[in-house]
Amino acid sequence: MSSIKDINPQKGMRDILPKQVELRNFVSGSILAVYKKYGFLQIETPSLEDINLLSNGEGGENEKMLFKVLKRGEKLDLSEKQDENSLADMGLRYDLTVPLCRFYANNKAQLPQTFKVIQFGDVWRAERPQKGRFRQFKQCDIDIIGVKDVSAEAELILATSEALLSIGFKDFKIKINDRRILSGLVKYCGFEESDYNKVFIILDKLVKIGIDGVKQELQESNFSVDSVNKIIEIIKKIPETKITTATIKNIITDIDENILKDLDFVIDNVSKQAGEKYSIVLDISLVRGMGYYTGQIFEIEAVNYGTSIAGGGRYDNLVGRFLDGVAIPACGFSIGFERVISILEEQNFQIPKTQNKIVLLYSEEDIKNMEDVFKTAQKLRESGNTVLTELKSKNLKAQLDKVMEQGFDSFAIFSKDKEVEIKSLSQK
Amino acid sequence: MSSIKDINPQKGMRDILPKQVELRNFVSGSILAVYKKYGFLQIETPSLEDINLLSNGEGGENEKMLFKVLKRGEKLDLSEKQDENSLADMGLRYDLTVPLCRFYANNKAQLPQTFKVIQFGDVWRAERPQKGRFRQFKQCDIDIIGVKDVSAEAELILATSEALLSIGFKDFKIKINDRRILSGLVKYCGFEESDYNKVFIILDKLVKIGIDGVKQELQESNFSVDSVNKIIEIIKKIPETKITTATIKNIITDIDENILKDLDFVIDNVSKQAGEKYSIVLDISLVRGMGYYTGQIFEIEAVNYGTSIAGGGRYDNLVGRFLDGVAIPACGFSIGFERVISILEEQNFQIPKTQNKIVLLYSEEDIKNMEDVFKTAQKLRESGNTVLTELKSKNLKAQLDKVMEQGFDSFAIFSKDKEVEIKSLSQK
Repeated sequence: MSSIKDINPQKGMRDILPKQVELRNFVSGSILAVYKKYGFLQIETPSLEDINLLSNGEGGENEKMLFKVLKRGEKLDLSEKQDENSLADMGLRYDLTVPLCRFYANNKAQLPQTFKVIQFGDVWRAERPQKGRFRQFKQCDIDIIGVKDVSAEAELILATSEALLSIGFKDFKIKINDRRILSGLVKYCGFEESDYNKVFIILDKLVKIGIDGVKQELQESNFSVDSVNKIIEIIKKIPETKITTATIKNIITDIDENILKDLDFVIDNVSKQAGEKYSIVLDISLVRGMGYYTGQIFEIEAVNYGTSIAGGGRYDNLVGRFLDGVAIPACGFSIGFERVISILEEQNFQIPKTQNKIVLLYSEEDIKNMEDVFKTAQKLRESGNTVLTELKSKNLKAQLDKVMEQGFDSFAIFSKDKEVEIKSLSQK
Repeated sequence: MSSIKDINPQKGMRDILPKQVELRNFVSGSILAVYKKYGFLQIETPSLEDINLLSNGEGGENEKMLFKVLKRGEKLDLSEKQDENSLADMGLRYDLTVPLCRFYANNKAQLPQTFKVIQFGDVWRAERPQKGRFRQFKQCDIDIIGVKDVSAEAELILATSEALLSIGFKDFKIKINDRRILSGLVKYCGFEESDYNKVFIILDKLVKIGIDGVKQELQESNFSVDSVNKIIEIIKKIPETKITTATIKNIITDIDENILKDLDFVIDNVSKQAGEKYSIVLDISLVRGMGYYTGQIFEIEAVNYGTSIAGGGRYDNLVGRFLDGVAIPACGFSIGFERVISILEEQNFQIPKTQNKIVLLYSEEDIKNMEDVFKTAQKLRESGNTVLTELKSKNLKAQLDKVMEQGFDSFAIFSKDKEVEIKSLSQK
């Protein structure tokens, strides 16, 4: 058999080590437990979807980053020169929202009228690899399908905030806006309606490129100088004055009052449940990248990191596309699982200890009495411990150091004649 | 926006509904909890691996069923007619063993000397779709890397058996054999050494095609009539007489005694821990498909279903291929997660109830007091219940039937003036 030279994961992919998996399982377990307490139901969709579904325009930039799967068997025609689209029939999903809409349409008859749903799974994007960005990563989404009033938005925000609190995540703040306010705002500043989306995309870069960057990009796009100055003035005010729905009413006088009432409803309800634990603020610079949002949009910011760790909003027109245009209201909130993990790792977060983790060492000689080694281990397990059995190595210190690195806290040396004595690894 | 017609999962793929996910989570949670008690550490590898790694011959039949991923950007040359291999650079993994070996080689410095490892994840195979077979499915593997004696085999079998018991799986039996006995046996029957693998592949079909089928296939392969008759006679005896290592010694007189001693060691140790709960038998007709096994091989059979639900064995030469030939002993055991799930579903298995699942209904009018609805739900959650809030529908009975189908057992109607009263859904 030949030897294999390349032992690295593929570009942008990664091996996840035991300590990392432990943290990831703790975090996902805590989040899912909260969502389940709220009565959300978990589903799974396949990793692979029809290439046409994944390239129909809903995914925006993500569609450019598709991993496409080669056709198989007779379907793959290599008898002549082919173009990319004729070679692939499936792709790896780039998010969980598009598959959810297909799932809902496909299984509607078996689902409750109001479908409150959890998804936790991998998505793939062929992004240019950079620090902290991977080509396969996990998303954790909750969505409410079938509720048209904003109690859905409020509940999504409450559940997601509680999920973050449950893992010991503290300093965060919720930012909320409404896509229709953004439209009103750019209209008020005098932009042409056909330019709205272009303006949104530039505004969305505010955190990344700063206000000067946004101003420059707007100027370079040849919008009217007046409009650019007007919107920059408004954005500049945001961190200084606390914007309220009343302020908005003053700026955009022809805005639909219900949009503002709905924002007040969510801000009010979330604030009351939040108490001192976290806060929610109206942020009219919040845009959210995806094209499919139709109403409120929201984000959770990790305050000391200036980074968004969750995002979502209402998308009332997307599900209907899978159901011959029948209107189905929907909104969702997605936790950026990988960002939460990296922040926790940066904080050197320790998982709360719930049991002892013991390594039970035996000698070559003891293998003859393996039955007793197994029994001893099993007895310790039955009293609630994790017990790893290992052949005692010549270099005991190195061996114990290694298991300690993996999170073990105690050790014991097997003896067939007497009870084992459990010692702490830190006193070894 | 255009409407989307095809809402089905791709061929051989499936949507997994909430009740199914609940069962899957219960089963995987129970299995992983047992493995963790044994001190096994969980890892994750990427879904996508180098196409060369996945087509180097170790995967046998599975390599023919690869989902290949199209190259991207400049790497994809479509300027002229291409062959399949020049179009793809990665593939979806078809098992968890090959990626594990790559992982071990890549991360060896950070891993303990004896690496006891858990993997739980999806694999993909472009199989011809058939009932109960899917193109994406989950595997749950444990492996021990770095232990050369058969205490590893014994522990893998004990841990896997305990994992099955923990989900309430009862009637199962462990079958064990050694690849080197198989070689001895076919040698004893007079087959040519160059035919051994061919004979093994036919023997492996015993459960599928029966003894007459095996005989026919052996005859059709033009082996010596004597050899075929001899091996069929031996296989015929298996269900009648209890084969022991002593019987084997009588048949294959030149067999290495250590192989038999090792089998006795494992059978003896497992039997003692198993007690009356399950059994382990020597089965010299057991083959196991994969080419990489070098020593003991084993399987767990669900007795009333005549189907294998777990399989594994020792593969001492595989890891070394990733480490310039440095010999690293290894063995593993893999639970066929999907088969376990289908058997449990067939048995209409019910997950043990640990909490009440309440739906709290509110009216359109109550949305004004949403704050109180949220508080009421939260209070019930804090006392350990799962609480789903839902707008009361006109057809209350249909609504309650739907939530009951999803596993909810109680309901309550919100009232802003008095405490909610929780009623059982079965008495509604």
